[in-house]
Amino acid sequence: MNYPPKFPVQWLLFMVMVLSILLIGISAGRTDIPRLSPTRGVIIEHPDFLSSAIVSDDLQTFYYPQTLDHFNYQPQSYATFQQRYVMNSKYWGGAKKSAPVLAYLGAEGPLDEDLTLIGFLNDNAVRFNALLVYIEHRYYGKSIPFGSREEAFKNASTLGYFNSAQAIADYAEIIMHIKNKLRAFYSPVIVVGGSYGGMLASWLRLKYPHVALGALASSAPILYFDKITPRGAYFSVVTKDFREASESCYQTIRNSWSVIDRIASQPNGLSTLSMIFKTCKPLKSSSELKNELENMYAVVAQYDSPPWYPVTVVCGGIDGANEKQNILDKIFAGVVAYKGNRSCYINPPTNESETYVKWRWQTCSEMVIPIGIGKRTMFQPEPFNLNNFIQECKSLYGVPPRPHWVTSYYGGHDIKLILHRFGSNIIFSNGLRDPYSRGGVLENISESILAVHTVNGSHCLDILPEMESDPEWLVKQRETEVKIIKGWMAQYYADLKAIQIKP
Amino acid sequence: MNYPPKFPVQWLLFMVMVLSILLIGISAGRTDIPRLSPTRGVIIEHPDFLSSAIVSDDLQTFYYPQTLDHFNYQPQSYATFQQRYVMNSKYWGGAKKSAPVLAYLGAEGPLDEDLTLIGFLNDNAVRFNALLVYIEHRYYGKSIPFGSREEAFKNASTLGYFNSAQAIADYAEIIMHIKNKLRAFYSPVIVVGGSYGGMLASWLRLKYPHVALGALASSAPILYFDKITPRGAYFSVVTKDFREASESCYQTIRNSWSVIDRIASQPNGLSTLSMIFKTCKPLKSSSELKNELENMYAVVAQYDSPPWYPVTVVCGGIDGANEKQNILDKIFAGVVAYKGNRSCYINPPTNESETYVKWRWQTCSEMVIPIGIGKRTMFQPEPFNLNNFIQECKSLYGVPPRPHWVTSYYGGHDIKLILHRFGSNIIFSNGLRDPYSRGGVLENISESILAVHTVNGSHCLDILPEMESDPEWLVKQRETEVKIIKGWMAQYYADLKAIQIKP
Repeated sequence: MNYPPKFPVQWLLFMVMVLSILLIGISAGRTDIPRLSPTRGVIIEHPDFLSSAIVSDDLQTFYYPQTLDHFNYQPQSYATFQQRYVMNSKYWGGAKKSAPVLAYLGAEGPLDEDLTLIGFLNDNAVRFNALLVYIEHRYYGKSIPFGSREEAFKNASTLGYFNSAQAIADYAEIIMHIKNKLRAFYSPVIVVGGSYGGMLASWLRLKYPHVALGALASSAPILYFDKITPRGAYFSVVTKDFREASESCYQTIRNSWSVIDRIASQPNGLSTLSMIFKTCKPLKSSSELKNELENMYAVVAQYDSPPWYPVTVVCGGIDGANEKQNILDKIFAGVVAYKGNRSCYINPPTNESETYVKWRWQTCSEMVIPIGIGKRTMFQPEPFNLNNFIQECKSLYGVPPRPHWVTSYYGGHDIKLILHRFGSNIIFSNGLRDPYSRGGVLENISESILAVHTVNGSHCLDILPEMESDPEWLVKQRETEVKIIKGWMAQYYADLKAIQIKP
Repeated sequence: MNYPPKFPVQWLLFMVMVLSILLIGISAGRTDIPRLSPTRGVIIEHPDFLSSAIVSDDLQTFYYPQTLDHFNYQPQSYATFQQRYVMNSKYWGGAKKSAPVLAYLGAEGPLDEDLTLIGFLNDNAVRFNALLVYIEHRYYGKSIPFGSREEAFKNASTLGYFNSAQAIADYAEIIMHIKNKLRAFYSPVIVVGGSYGGMLASWLRLKYPHVALGALASSAPILYFDKITPRGAYFSVVTKDFREASESCYQTIRNSWSVIDRIASQPNGLSTLSMIFKTCKPLKSSSELKNELENMYAVVAQYDSPPWYPVTVVCGGIDGANEKQNILDKIFAGVVAYKGNRSCYINPPTNESETYVKWRWQTCSEMVIPIGIGKRTMFQPEPFNLNNFIQECKSLYGVPPRPHWVTSYYGGHDIKLILHRFGSNIIFSNGLRDPYSRGGVLENISESILAVHTVNGSHCLDILPEMESDPEWLVKQRETEVKIIKGWMAQYYADLKAIQIKP
């Protein structure tokens, strides 16, 4: 492993985009914390990764005329849009054998990237003789209602249909459509998703047990709603990750904020900070800088994965700086270690990305994940203020969020009490270095609603492509998941036989 | 038991209304088969019933500002309407003890009548120390959106929100609201419903296990969708009920249709039929007469309950007629035996009742229950024609039904395979004389998804008030249900203790 890693240019560009996404947001509500997404380019350009994650030639793309509103019977509800899904049937054992289906549920982005990134499907197609299916989430990529992006994103009237209940119903309809089309009525379906998509996978299994036999919900923070999970949990884990990587790095970061504040309060302080951090544009406020740093620390913690372990990369920069250097020079060295050598940093010119804009609607309607920063972290405290959040969303879209809807519709409170004797066949997988893991299910709920986590894992790591360099704990986590799913299938086939249904 | 029973005047009036409802309908789709409703006045005026079913003084009425559209975030989705619910807390053990809640989910009618008719709540309040809650279904009774009945029923644009998924979400929200208001966070809730309301109860438990611990779904034909249940099953059971009551009665009815057709085809035949059946208005077609007779047989079979057993009443009339009488005179004697002495029969002047009009929308949008009449019944065959049904609904409302939506959203196909290892705590109760029972769950699905049925029971009989005259099998059925529910609660309280949640 090269250390510090040499980052290729494309990767840098990608990270620039990613980080710029993070900077624009509704600060009061902290919707600027890292989005829920399986990958953030952290490993996307690694050679091992590239060799293992190749877009298959066997992918076929389809479009399904999807109902705009499943839960209303107004004339406009019957409008349809073309929803994209992709299939790979090369390894499928066929309908006669009721061979299984692995169905990846798209999250908050276009499907394209997922076709390579979601290794769990490619890597397991042969093991399961499975049909692979990937379905794009409504309003993302090529699955846009109302004929055009402009129309679809015009205002709350066209955005109103853009929510998780409708998306899960879409997935259910497409899976049933595929099974009917292939006459694979008794093929068991395992839905797979990561992050927001992982929530969707677990909820689909809970709401539509007749559609999916089981779900692999990777890094799905289904408990990060209402007050189920302490609001400060996310940044506590970011802090823990850094402290475990390096006590001195943690201390340096922890001490840096007041230094930034002090300099910012001086005459020409913002210019000084702009110079220290080689910003692309003069800083308009110290929070511009602080937010970007916060977000960088959060992203690297969330995706602190092998083979690079970006937390270690950042801390390598900070700790490796000359002892006599100023504290902010050390911080800057961390930025450079992570971002590589560039002409400028922090606030490069950028547009709001499509995904960012769309996910903002989702967080401003129902996906209200109340992350704040509490005391005893390496950050300055910044509590989540629900009222401010609601006001900001209202001013953006004209309609307020429904912050309790997720727990009303999907549950979450006292999950063990509720699901201990209800439901089955869900794996909640997590890596404990992922700050979102604290909003995940980390304890077995029943014999078949299971928590599979790794101490050193990061966000969605288990569903990314297998690589030669994977550490043993990761290999084992994936093996455990496959074994559990094989067990569900074996039981299903036995039930099918016992109930004497002939496919 | 008086035989033939003397029917009081009010009851006659009620039956006139009821039967007139049944006559108006979309004949091709057989939406004129008896509605799904717990009672049809068949026992409502019985003295035993009246003494046991008294509206409690302890009922309190509330209105909840309910969200118009739970599954959309358009500005108009946020509109609210006042949804009525009623509580009786006289017998409740209180929040500190986490004493249970029995929640009746309103079906396709105003709530008022249910407050007396749903004996299961009143009769069990003391046994469970339960809080009683009754919630009205949106668009019925006093729970009308859009400010007025006229506005709400104007067209598909205002009717679009009138569907089961929205109704179940309403119930979930109100139950959570009540629990929060009373700080009864850990009180187990058992939802109870009959017929369509029984379907809602079972679906609420399946979709919102965090809201209801269990469901008693009485006479809920959740499998009478798509082609899960043979379309002719309903009228096969009607036939069986009559044949079991009296072979000669069955034969007389069976032979009557061709006689009606023969007479109708003669010159002045319709006048002759109008005279024989003392119709209130001259018949316009023979099917007017045949439909009403069909519906009468269906209603009495569906509600063939003690102490009167209306099938026996009708057959008493038919079989009791003079042997030498014409076959149609015998049939008419059956009508008179059932309806009592009146100045005219068959087609009294009437308006489409509110409930009829509303339920028609529900059948024309999602509740497509494909009942037809097959061969080997005592009726003339009349297959269900889905295309005709769709066309008629389209011409009524401008939008077509979604006939597969119920099984897409709630499931139903291969229910044992699907729910054997998923979900828990549902009682599907049925009386096998009820023709809808054939679309019900008649077999245990798992250890706690149970079928409790009686050979001689009728539609929703188990949830009606206990009466002195109840036969032993009915008393036992109710005892079984109470015992099962007590078992769920005992397990729940044990789990609560084990998980160490302190209410």
